[in-house]
Amino acid sequence: MRIAQIQSLVSGRKEENLDRMEEEFCRLDGQGIDLVMFGEMFCCPYETPAFPLYAEKEGGRTWQRLSSMARDHRVILSAGTMPETDEGGHVYNTAFVFDREGRQIARYRKRHLFEVDIPADPAAGRPCQSFHESETLTAGKETVTFDTEFGRLGICICFDMRFPDQFRDMALAGARLILVPAAFNLSTGPVHWDLLHRSNALSSQCFIAATSTARNEHASYVSYGHSMLVSPWGNVISELDEAPGTLITDIDLAEADRIRQQLPVLSAIKTEAAGLPRRTIS
Amino acid sequence: MRIAQIQSLVSGRKEENLDRMEEEFCRLDGQGIDLVMFGEMFCCPYETPAFPLYAEKEGGRTWQRLSSMARDHRVILSAGTMPETDEGGHVYNTAFVFDREGRQIARYRKRHLFEVDIPADPAAGRPCQSFHESETLTAGKETVTFDTEFGRLGICICFDMRFPDQFRDMALAGARLILVPAAFNLSTGPVHWDLLHRSNALSSQCFIAATSTARNEHASYVSYGHSMLVSPWGNVISELDEAPGTLITDIDLAEADRIRQQLPVLSAIKTEAAGLPRRTIS
Repeated sequence: MRIAQIQSLVSGRKEENLDRMEEEFCRLDGQGIDLVMFGEMFCCPYETPAFPLYAEKEGGRTWQRLSSMARDHRVILSAGTMPETDEGGHVYNTAFVFDREGRQIARYRKRHLFEVDIPADPAAGRPCQSFHESETLTAGKETVTFDTEFGRLGICICFDMRFPDQFRDMALAGARLILVPAAFNLSTGPVHWDLLHRSNALSSQCFIAATSTARNEHASYVSYGHSMLVSPWGNVISELDEAPGTLITDIDLAEADRIRQQLPVLSAIKTEAAGLPRRTIS
Repeated sequence: MRIAQIQSLVSGRKEENLDRMEEEFCRLDGQGIDLVMFGEMFCCPYETPAFPLYAEKEGGRTWQRLSSMARDHRVILSAGTMPETDEGGHVYNTAFVFDREGRQIARYRKRHLFEVDIPADPAAGRPCQSFHESETLTAGKETVTFDTEFGRLGICICFDMRFPDQFRDMALAGARLILVPAAFNLSTGPVHWDLLHRSNALSSQCFIAATSTARNEHASYVSYGHSMLVSPWGNVISELDEAPGTLITDIDLAEADRIRQQLPVLSAIKTEAAGLPRRTIS
């Protein structure tokens, strides 16, 4: 399975962001890519006031361009995330996934909204970071896995990575690869980005493809970058720096099965001991 | 709160191991230590046939020596782990904790037994590792937290660290420091030891004190060492190498409260979304 993670700069012009992805798709043609992935809010500035302004309904204009890209280039497309409105006017941070025919095969609305107030720590070289997605976004309610020609995959978004239960649930539901469109920042990125992806991969015994937007020092929210592909053993297989770029990685999902045999963690989960039913989520 | 983690060599003579701890206790007197901690199976070779041979009942001879150490030196003692038998003849990998009066304040029986068959990987410098605690041990059924003058603490043992749910449950029950007596090995230690302690501390927003036995290259199971104290931000505050030694660290549990405010993870846990009740475990 060959994965291409496109770490792109985000501009305030939605169509320009989509055009840029289209160009990158053309460059990737003929390289045998199976799955293409974008970062979180790849076509909308990561600012709470922007989310309602850029939001569209499922099946809208941006959705249609994404569906066409998947179909035209014959790849599975995990189209990062975009602000999505429902009938009731709620706005979600939503990840759509399309198959090689351009059909939507997953819609995941971010469950854990990004809510932080982190003060600066000059001694640690840490800038302050305050952000509240809940100012304009509504949290999703469902954990999502979906089926592809490579078996079942899972998907979640950025701040979700701080909740290992969600990864465990996706793994128990059959996922062996979990997609994480994201946009960490310079306060938590240097200390937590690698750590969380590696530990989530290890504990859920899944591959993790984490795709960030590229760093733009002039944006109000400065993305950490460092898109990466992590093995179920917790090793970083491949990684970008903070600049725009595309990370291409070949993985063999059967490696997850081998590791689950050698180190039987998933099969030893004891939700029963806490009086809980074994979770199955489709 | 001042913590002393004693990373000791383990010999096949039970009393010798206890004598060594007693000597180290005397060296620590007058240093203002509040809590002393030993590693996993600190007084019994880490070999499945040894566990039933070295096992004792709660309140037995070793238990009494441990209780006396806590009382005589006026410290909270997390006495690593030892093989413990119950009335029915089952043997557990058990952690006892005593208060400054020598009274038992916690008994935790390892819930996730160590069961691995990891082949060697010469390219990664990894030796093989096969071990099955279930050959002679029975798994405990309960997650444990307990109260001290410093508030509530949690405790688990070694392989449990691969199950972040258990850390989350202890944190939700009120723990701000989690004790992890352990004995990792040279196959998984170099890649997983730091990673798991740091990510468990970060995701559960607790301090973690992980205490290993010291490395003995002549033992059948070679312990990784590297006892460490990790902050709720996921940083290693202090760490030993593989040699015998005592790690003394001062921590302020209020730091866990501050981090929980800045980065509200625990309060955002959505067990309800998966149809689960919010877990409370005492």
